[in-house]
Amino acid sequence: MFFKYPQDFKERELAPGILLRLVWGERVMLSHVTLQPHSTVPTHSHPHEQTGMVLEGELDMTVGGQTCRCRKGDAFTIPGGVEHSASSGEVGATVLDTFSPPREDYM
Amino acid sequence: MFFKYPQDFKERELAPGILLRLVWGERVMLSHVTLQPHSTVPTHSHPHEQTGMVLEGELDMTVGGQTCRCRKGDAFTIPGGVEHSASSGEVGATVLDTFSPPREDYM
Repeated sequence: MFFKYPQDFKERELAPGILLRLVWGERVMLSHVTLQPHSTVPTHSHPHEQTGMVLEGELDMTVGGQTCRCRKGDAFTIPGGVEHSASSGEVGATVLDTFSPPREDYM
Repeated sequence: MFFKYPQDFKERELAPGILLRLVWGERVMLSHVTLQPHSTVPTHSHPHEQTGMVLEGELDMTVGGQTCRCRKGDAFTIPGGVEHSASSGEVGATVLDTFSPPREDYM
């Protein structure tokens, strides 16, 4: 019960070309996000803190009016309630996001 | 202030051959862990929930008496207070851990 394998993750298509693979504990939800090239997460916000790191590729992120061409190894923290969006370019991206508390709407 | 770049991460050598690169928000600390081959995290526990995913390589983890030869894409959740340990073999491993709440002793 402590170990979670890929076949056990819950999958969710967030938007066209954007696949979430979800696993969670009591306090943190991991969301392994694959963005195909030229995919967009529209501007939105949620009360959950979101912290994450780019694992592969690159994507443009806008958080609370700040922008980043984020690449492998770059990280971010989005406090609850702060508007954010993201879009990938030619190469796509893989991101490991966390939500705390876990997002009930993704369970 | 929302974006965190690798040169801004706090680094900590957890044990010989094991480097943590840390970044955190209010609720979640990310710990990007690089284990050189044949490195060991001795058995320990902490009150913080620890959830993470193997990014590269493989490692043997023991959590609450359960064991896993964990490989890229495998995930785990360690509730607060549960004893755990890890060791890498020939190939080493990279893991993205999360702690919630953030570990004050790593700040």
